[in-house]
Amino acid sequence: MSRPAGRPPGRSPDGHGPAGLSRRALLEGVAAAGGAGAVIATLAALGGLPATPARAAAPALPRDGRRVLVVGGGIAGLVAAHEMRRAGWSVRLLEAAPRLGGRCLTLRGGDAVAESDGPGQRVAWDRAPHLYFNAGAARIPHHHRGILGYCRALGVPLEVLVNENRAALVEAPNGAPSGAVPLRRVQADLRGLVAELAVKGLGAGALPGPLSAAELEGLRRALRSWGALEEDLRYRGSARAGWAVPPGAGAEAPQPLAPLDPRVLLQPGLWRAAGFAEGIDYQATMLQPVGGMDRIALALGQALGDAVTTGAELLSLRRVEGGARATWRAADGARREAVVPAVLLALPAPVLARLDTDLSPGRRAALAALPQAGALKLAFLARRRFWEEDAAIYGGISWLARDATQIWYPSHGFHAAGGVLLGAYVWDEAVAGRIAGLDPAARGAAMAADGEALHPGYASETAAPVSVAWGRMPRALGAWADWTPAQRARDQAMLQAPEGPYHFAGDHLSWLPGWQEGAVLSAWGALEGLARPVP
Amino acid sequence: MSRPAGRPPGRSPDGHGPAGLSRRALLEGVAAAGGAGAVIATLAALGGLPATPARAAAPALPRDGRRVLVVGGGIAGLVAAHEMRRAGWSVRLLEAAPRLGGRCLTLRGGDAVAESDGPGQRVAWDRAPHLYFNAGAARIPHHHRGILGYCRALGVPLEVLVNENRAALVEAPNGAPSGAVPLRRVQADLRGLVAELAVKGLGAGALPGPLSAAELEGLRRALRSWGALEEDLRYRGSARAGWAVPPGAGAEAPQPLAPLDPRVLLQPGLWRAAGFAEGIDYQATMLQPVGGMDRIALALGQALGDAVTTGAELLSLRRVEGGARATWRAADGARREAVVPAVLLALPAPVLARLDTDLSPGRRAALAALPQAGALKLAFLARRRFWEEDAAIYGGISWLARDATQIWYPSHGFHAAGGVLLGAYVWDEAVAGRIAGLDPAARGAAMAADGEALHPGYASETAAPVSVAWGRMPRALGAWADWTPAQRARDQAMLQAPEGPYHFAGDHLSWLPGWQEGAVLSAWGALEGLARPVP
Repeated sequence: MSRPAGRPPGRSPDGHGPAGLSRRALLEGVAAAGGAGAVIATLAALGGLPATPARAAAPALPRDGRRVLVVGGGIAGLVAAHEMRRAGWSVRLLEAAPRLGGRCLTLRGGDAVAESDGPGQRVAWDRAPHLYFNAGAARIPHHHRGILGYCRALGVPLEVLVNENRAALVEAPNGAPSGAVPLRRVQADLRGLVAELAVKGLGAGALPGPLSAAELEGLRRALRSWGALEEDLRYRGSARAGWAVPPGAGAEAPQPLAPLDPRVLLQPGLWRAAGFAEGIDYQATMLQPVGGMDRIALALGQALGDAVTTGAELLSLRRVEGGARATWRAADGARREAVVPAVLLALPAPVLARLDTDLSPGRRAALAALPQAGALKLAFLARRRFWEEDAAIYGGISWLARDATQIWYPSHGFHAAGGVLLGAYVWDEAVAGRIAGLDPAARGAAMAADGEALHPGYASETAAPVSVAWGRMPRALGAWADWTPAQRARDQAMLQAPEGPYHFAGDHLSWLPGWQEGAVLSAWGALEGLARPVP
Repeated sequence: MSRPAGRPPGRSPDGHGPAGLSRRALLEGVAAAGGAGAVIATLAALGGLPATPARAAAPALPRDGRRVLVVGGGIAGLVAAHEMRRAGWSVRLLEAAPRLGGRCLTLRGGDAVAESDGPGQRVAWDRAPHLYFNAGAARIPHHHRGILGYCRALGVPLEVLVNENRAALVEAPNGAPSGAVPLRRVQADLRGLVAELAVKGLGAGALPGPLSAAELEGLRRALRSWGALEEDLRYRGSARAGWAVPPGAGAEAPQPLAPLDPRVLLQPGLWRAAGFAEGIDYQATMLQPVGGMDRIALALGQALGDAVTTGAELLSLRRVEGGARATWRAADGARREAVVPAVLLALPAPVLARLDTDLSPGRRAALAALPQAGALKLAFLARRRFWEEDAAIYGGISWLARDATQIWYPSHGFHAAGGVLLGAYVWDEAVAGRIAGLDPAARGAAMAADGEALHPGYASETAAPVSVAWGRMPRALGAWADWTPAQRARDQAMLQAPEGPYHFAGDHLSWLPGWQEGAVLSAWGALEGLARPVP
């Protein structure tokens, strides 16, 4: 599941960087080393160098036929097993669920959801290729080279996922009668406001020393165009925000909307929606597998063939001479066991913490102490794609100032017969807990009522809700690990390190918890440990 | 063809609005009418009201069996003929070319391009569904309800077109050695700079009167998060710009890139690239038909069936008793004629101006005087999708500070075997003219050399160039009409109005020249004239 932006700091290192560089020269008036030569040198040093690429390939493994048991058929376990098999190792992967993918869960008509409390749910939708719900992981940033590399290698077709759509809606948070504003209007008017303020900042002597009068004038011009300001450097509305009179084919000239009241623009919810897709993991281009996120896990499973055993629930793990003994209950109910030189444990932290193992008490305590986000997603079937027909919304995300938090519109199946709408994506712990406490039908009713704030008639247009509260899913026990900086400093290296025959993988061990890429990188890290010469 | 943003003002009414509203109260200190009631009232009046929707349906036509000849099988003519046929009118559409669509031209392996000067071109690509080149119209904004309505009604499948991709590159315009900066870095660093300046603008007393201390503090906090500023309200880089140390699965914490040198940020080319997708017609979500833009024209043509005659070149038009006599040369070379009560002329302005007609001299002069953009597009075949494999670029547009101007990466066929890359989209008259003056092979060589600035090895990765200089296409004689405000004021209403038996349609008559939506709206406008009771 992809973690939304705007979360408390410290969990994602956005906005924190090395100490300021010569930017200070611009803003504080310290004279910069002048001249074109200096600019070119700086360009080469700073502007031109590509960012260090993220690791994009698995480590090379010795082709020495090792034997490894992998426990957990999410992305981390699947990727690790796939690489081991490619190296000719003897690998067996056990997955407790009847299906692969873990939190890469795609639900379709007829599927069942069983949380640990409350009644089970059955998905009451037609079966059609475009009618699915990515209840967990749902988006792939274009720079997540690891997971995308597997899509490429395994032939999983990808398509664009719209993360920011300027036609999507932002609820004005005070509950005013018609308080939903298209994101285009929020973006344009905020930009106008900020640009006007920035021009004033310029005039306030913020740029003294090194800038020539011509450069200053150039910056003023740039700010004008950046914010759609008028010639007097004021913002009086812009077509970027939308049309009061749209362009037609008659005599009347189009007219842009007037700006929103500035006090409306002070609402934090608007700024949050406007900044959301700036985050490194939320920027365009975002991608999704055609037909559902589980296609990646399925492709990895297919490549692994008979090395994968589903429905195999681990019962215990013990160190023994020559490695570890694993005991599990097979899908047919029979008890099986195997002694293997190495075990890769690719399970969510709270699941691993509760297993009957002889892992060190320190590790088990750290695993149990790792906080888990209890995020929740809910989807509806809609017989009519009212968001497209009525509001010209093709994909993207609307923001609510109520429990549902976000509505996601499908980025595929445009104009098709019906669609699956994500009616709620909630990651606030208190709100998610409140919704999770309702029975499935009541969750649906509450989220349908919330949607009315953006789309009149929403509750009657939507039906057959399905929800997944990740904190209550027995094989996940959470949506993603919510490390605190203190826990990272104390426990991360220990949790990443092997322990005797045991090795570890999972997105929670990476710096990208909640992302498939974190699972891939962690699997690659574990492979390095597994590849070390046997002592 | 979709007109790029950043064109001279007056052509697209972006950034011009009604006189400033209470925004001035914020920025100039005029006291706003205070209190929550006033805010809610303003919200309802300004924030909540949806923008007037653009016209999204054709006018109702009387079902009285009229007879109309339509000349021109671009979108305007096709849409008008389709609506007339739906109303049971007797309609015949003549298209001079062997294919429908006009400037909605999709080229595939084996197709030919014949400009009026210079050697012809044959597209030397394999035939595969993802290997096509939208040489004219290439994108559909989500709010272009007219053309999208036809896609929906006629079952033309749509997919997302990525217009802004933060992984795309912006060439730093001074030709420094490694002077290509990912758009994410441009966007993040500009945002940081503007936010810092805006904070200074706040501090400079730009916000006196109506804001409380708490509101001012809220705005400061909002600007901080908006610009990824640090606690002291300074920008020192952000993960939004990319990683110096990307997140991995080891001990090392990720580190964002340091900010670009501020002088680099003063380059206008960076601001242009950063503001491009803010324009109302360039915002996400943008769409494209699966398989090529010509699918829309083909679907309209299919719906029209035998009402369409291709290869039929109009020779003359004369008013006669009972309407007009049209004479044309059919595809078999034979001369045909018909007398019809009404003729809809749906041709580009310069093409219509040159025809042998008895249109009024004033109209013909105005048509001839309407300036035409001479935009040019060029595409390459690439055997390897190097932009995806090497640079993680999935769709979107890179900006060059050289003749090629833009490179477009395909938004479809991700990870497929090869792809068609738009190697140049040029709308500057002088540059387009310079390139158009080269023979096709030389155009390809020049654009391949330009691409090296962004992608080392580009020239050897790309092959089989195909280019279309719209000013030289005999049935277009331009890419789109480039109205001046003076011409609009003087000629637009006259050109839109019928003249005796003659009616007129075409994107150039709308406020959206260069867009399919303009053609649709213009067709609908012409239908209103055609539907009036016959005198």
